[in-house]
Formats: sequence, structure tokens, C-alpha cells
Amino acid sequence: MTSFPFFQHISSDRSSLAREGVIRTRHGVVPTPAFMPVGTRGTVKGLTPDTLSACGAEIVLVNAFHLWLRPGTERVREAGGIGRMMGVDCPVLSDSGGYQIHSLETRRTVTEEGVSFLSPYDGAKVFLSPEISVAHSEALGVDIRMVLDDLAGAAAPPARIREAMERTHRWALRALNAWDPGTTAPLFGIIQGGVDRALREESARGLVSLVGSRGQSFSGFGIGGLGVGETVDERLSVLDATVPILPENRPRYLMGVGYPGDILEAVRRGVDLFDCVLPTRNARNGSYFTREGAIAIRNARFREDDRPIDSSCGCATCRRHSRAYLHHLVKNDEMTGAILGTIHNVSFYLEIMREIRARIRSGTLSGLDWPCFTTRHAIGGDS
Amino acid sequence: MTSFPFFQHISSDRSSLAREGVIRTRHGVVPTPAFMPVGTRGTVKGLTPDTLSACGAEIVLVNAFHLWLRPGTERVREAGGIGRMMGVDCPVLSDSGGYQIHSLETRRTVTEEGVSFLSPYDGAKVFLSPEISVAHSEALGVDIRMVLDDLAGAAAPPARIREAMERTHRWALRALNAWDPGTTAPLFGIIQGGVDRALREESARGLVSLVGSRGQSFSGFGIGGLGVGETVDERLSVLDATVPILPENRPRYLMGVGYPGDILEAVRRGVDLFDCVLPTRNARNGSYFTREGAIAIRNARFREDDRPIDSSCGCATCRRHSRAYLHHLVKNDEMTGAILGTIHNVSFYLEIMREIRARIRSGTLSGLDWPCFTTRHAIGGDS
Ligand SMILES: [Zn+2]
Ligand SMILES: [Zn+2]
Repeated sequence: MTSFPFFQHISSDRSSLAREGVIRTRHGVVPTPAFMPVGTRGTVKGLTPDTLSACGAEIVLVNAFHLWLRPGTERVREAGGIGRMMGVDCPVLSDSGGYQIHSLETRRTVTEEGVSFLSPYDGAKVFLSPEISVAHSEALGVDIRMVLDDLAGAAAPPARIREAMERTHRWALRALNAWDPGTTAPLFGIIQGGVDRALREESARGLVSLVGSRGQSFSGFGIGGLGVGETVDERLSVLDATVPILPENRPRYLMGVGYPGDILEAVRRGVDLFDCVLPTRNARNGSYFTREGAIAIRNARFREDDRPIDSSCGCATCRRHSRAYLHHLVKNDEMTGAILGTIHNVSFYLEIMREIRARIRSGTLSGLDWPCFTTRHAIGGDS
Repeated sequence: MTSFPFFQHISSDRSSLAREGVIRTRHGVVPTPAFMPVGTRGTVKGLTPDTLSACGAEIVLVNAFHLWLRPGTERVREAGGIGRMMGVDCPVLSDSGGYQIHSLETRRTVTEEGVSFLSPYDGAKVFLSPEISVAHSEALGVDIRMVLDDLAGAAAPPARIREAMERTHRWALRALNAWDPGTTAPLFGIIQGGVDRALREESARGLVSLVGSRGQSFSGFGIGGLGVGETVDERLSVLDATVPILPENRPRYLMGVGYPGDILEAVRRGVDLFDCVLPTRNARNGSYFTREGAIAIRNARFREDDRPIDSSCGCATCRRHSRAYLHHLVKNDEMTGAILGTIHNVSFYLEIMREIRARIRSGTLSGLDWPCFTTRHAIGGDS
């Protein structure tokens, strides 16, 4: 049996650190740079598996923390794993829930052993450790998984940021030791360190050099704790400091980021994987991404606009529907408006990734200058 | 140019008045008996046109009254008509809004000239007449349309029921005279008369014999004012009295009815067309139709049920998803639950109609005894 590498670097951009690659999993291959639509609770909000596939999704993200609490890890395992339960054919990556537990704020207690918290579903007291997290993601049957990490908020004092990073490292080693790389899905470490370049370098070096008791090291690296209030410059500075330390033969995943421009800048710094709720959440609010920037479909200017959301977009929504129709649906709170908007936004993000990959391959990434990469906010304002 | 008839009766059941037929429109043919998913405001809630088509929809219903108020009839006309705006390839039938205006209760005034009412969208005072209704449905570009009718509630006194019927007839003649049958879409009269068999017979005879100033008569007949609180026996008695009076070469449409059993009984009495919000509305509430009867997916008994909603159903939801997964989605208010449930319920209704047509053709309609045709209420109750 030939053993293919988990990640292969295929081509490099000529004027940046951008790279094209491919991730191989039990459920298929994922061309990178890739964007993962967010399916936190085991569904990308508003998209059936058929629709998600038609949008061009090649990998989807779920949250092991949420699935553990609802419908329950064992329930998902009995049902044949999360991919089968969701009905998707593509690979699935699970985040550990470190960020979600961090967001619980007062309802959690972090100790060296792990995190105690009150379930946001029913208030039950639950406990999560690095080892339990590895066991859950394994039982969920995902294709790639993240370790449990400890996060500090963007405004946390330096001592807390260091503490979170160091605990993340100790937990990473425990996760590594709880993981069987020979028979179970790849495991990624998560780099922390706030917006402090030195801490981020320390975190990256620490995780890259981490070796488990059976000689195993991480399959890839998440860059976590960003997209939480830092400035764009701070984030790019962290990437500049971090990515060059990471091994060339393992994927790098910028967690939870961001707008199209954020993604392009991170790709240029050598990042391979992305996830973000923006395309799905904004779609439900009537904010649609286009090559020219975002539009707020509720604006009265779209009432009689019979053009598609984006005339260059080939998604099912843009092929059939006008801005005027979507304006009508969204103004009248019709669920179909949220669905059609989500189809467009997710398709648009995935189209961006295809364009980025093609341009890395052809050496034209530096010419990628759609206005959406520099504008961030919805044009059109509120109606 | 060969002129095909609007409706052709193709085959008859051997033991009932059930009949198989075909309706021909500018946007395609519709095999009957047919069920029309309800797309009141220009969308079937939760279904994109691709999904609606995959569910097997061959005709869809919209409401000219709602579309007139939002996004506006002229707007729809400018956009190329409602079918194009919705992005559907199948024919579209528009109801006139008589029922919706009736439901406005205190905010409407019915006079001989027409109805004055306050818009449920913005409170604006608006006026609708039989002639204006014909003009609106024409501008919307629908394929089949209903006249404006006057309805009495199920509990209305006999004098009011007679008044509504007689006004419906006078309005029907005005609509007929405002209609150009040579160049515009077919127009259906609507039979009223409450649950009084004699009144219903009078209404059916009156509308069938109605001839416009250019010799035109109705393309088909709606049976209106039912599904508003009458008993099943009352409704079937009305159909027994009414349908035999209607011409064999024109379609009969039972408006707003009902459960699978109601539809089957009406088919057996010679009805060709149906619409009802039940499959879409119930799906959003987590109530799913199956051959065995309806199930309430929130019920805890489905938490670990890895079977599809209906093991005989070939819809996209049943092909990929378990009751347990839908239970999880619906319990967590995930929009995808409403979508997947709507796909199943609409597909199920359309599957029922295909089965009914096949059995009429093969002479086996009397053997159609799925439990869903006799049970009405959700099994499983609340969790
Ligand atoms: Zn699009
Ligand atoms: Zn089904």
C-alpha cells in the first residue's frame, strides 16, 4: 500500500509566500489554499449537503465542543460519524471548542487539568481536558482535528497571554500523547501568543519541536487567538513572524479569519486553510459579498435592480435571481432570502479560493486586485 | 399552428370519479391530479427553485394580492414576470387574494364595486375590484389565474353566505368581461356557497353557464371557501354536490385543502388541482408527513432514530438524513432543519400525487390505503 503524504506543497507564488497544495484525508482530497464553511452544530446554516456541494465546498468545519453537548459524541458515533450524519461527502475538520469555552467567560474555570464549565445548552456542569478532546474528535469521525487550547482575549494583560500560551503548549503535548497518528485522524497544534511577535515565535517554535512519547508530531498548525479584536496590522505582523517558522510540509490554518482581503493577505504570508462565519452570518443579515465589495441588499437602491448580486458569479443564486428579488425576500423575512444569500456568499468565498489557487499556479497572484480585497464594509448602508 | 386544449382528460378511475389529465400552459404541461406548493409572496418558504424542482414540483401557486402589495405588480412585470423573478421553470397559478382579504376582517369594506382595505404591510388604503384583479394577474405573467371572489366564514349566517356567493357571481362576470381569452392566461371562476349543498349547486351551475360579452367562459373552476372550519363530511358533501355539475373538459381546483386524506377523497370526487400550506408550514414546525402518518420530530423518541423520515421516500432529505439528525437540527432551531423538513414534506405531497395518477391509470386507486390517508394528526406528541 502506497502511503500518500497528508499534505503536499504543489506550487509557489513567485512574489509572495503563497503556496498551492493538497491535503489528503480518508474522505477525499482538499486543494489548498482552502476555505471551510462553518457548520458548528453539524450543519452549515441554511445549506443542505446538496447545496453545500453545489457551492463548491471541498471541506467543512464543525465544532467538537458543540457536537459533544448536542446531539452528543456517542450519538454521532453511533450514527456513523459526523460526515455521514450531516450527509456530506467531503472531509470534515473539527475545532476543539477552545474559543467557544473562552467565550463562556464567567461560566468556566480553567485549571491545569482542563476546563470546567456550565453547558450553554442546559447549564449542566461539564469538564473538558486535552485527552478528552482528542477522544471526542476521534469518536466524531472527523478527518482533521484541532487540540484543545487556552485563549486570552485581545485586551488581556501580557502575563495572561503568556500563561494561556504556555498552558496551550502543555495541553498540546498531552493531546499529542493521547493521539495515535497511525490509525486515527491527523491532529493540529494551535499557536497562541496574542499580538506579541516574540510570544508568537516562541509558540510556533515550541509546537513545531513538540514530540510525543511515540515520536509523533503535529500534522499541521492552527494559528489561533486572532480575529478577536486585534488590528489588521497586528494580525499580519503575527503571520509574518509565525508562518516562516512552520515546516513547509504541513498545512497552516488561520482560525476564524476573515474578510476576503484578510484571507488574501494571509495566503500571501503562506497560510493554507481558513474558516469564518462571515459568509454565512452576513448572508442571513442581507449582506452579500461581491467582487466590488459587499452590498446591503435591504437598501432601497436594490428594489428595482434586476442584475444578479455579482455579474461574474456563477452560483445558483446569481444564475437565476436578481438583487430586486432578493431585496423583496429579505425585506419580507422570507427564509428563502437567507438561503439564496448564503448560497451566494459561500460560493463567492469558494470562488475566491479557486481564483487564488489558479493564480498561484500561473504566477499571477500579485495581479489579483478585485475591489473586495481592499474594501471591508457593506456599501449601500441601511435603507 | 395546432391549438392544444388547455385541459385534456386522459384516463378515469374505474371505481370513483377520479381522473387523470393534463393542463397545458405557456410554461409547460402539468399532469393532474396535481398539488401546487404554496409560494404566496413569490417563494415557497425554504425552497430554492433548484430544490423545488428536485422535489418534483410541476406547478407552483403565488398570491396576486400579496405580490401586488410587495414587491408590486409593475415591479414583477418589469422583471419579466413572476416565474422569471422566482427563477422557476414550471407554470405558476395565482390566487386573487379573495381569501386573504376576507382574513383581514375589520380592516376591509366590501362593496359591489370591490374591496377597500388597509394594506397589511404598511396600512395604506387600497382598493381591489374584479377588473383590477384580472389586470394584476395578467401583468404578473402567471399561467393560470383565479377571479376575485367574496367569501363568507364557515360560521357566517345563511344570508351572508348567499350574499357572498351572489356577489362572487356578479364579480365573476365582470372578471370574465375584463379577460381576453385569446391572448392572455386562462381564468378560473370560483364556486362559493358555504357548506349548503343547494347553494353550492346553484353556484356551480351559475358559473358554468356564465358567458362573457365576447362569448368567453371560464377555463376551469375553483371550489373556494372550504378548509375554513367545516367538517370533513360537510366538505365531501359539497364536493359530491358540486363536481358532477362541472364540465368534463375543464380542470377543477379545490382551494387550500388539505391533508393527504382530504386530497385523496377529493380526487375520488373528481378534483384535479390542489394547494395547501400544510406541507411547508408543518415542516417548519417539525411535523413531517409519512406513509404511516405524521411524526413530530421534536419528540425524544427520535433522538436516536437513525432511519429516514419515511423509508419509502426518495427525497433528498430521506436519501441522506436520519430522523435523529433532523431531531438535532430542529431542537437547536437550525434553519437547515426547516429546509430539510420542507424538502421532505413537499416531495411527499408530490409523491402522493404521482402515486394517485399512476393508480388512476392502472385502475388501482381503490387499493391506495397508506395509513397517512386516514390519520391526520402528528403521532409522537410533544417531547
Ligand atoms: Zn452568486
Ligand atoms: Zn423524504
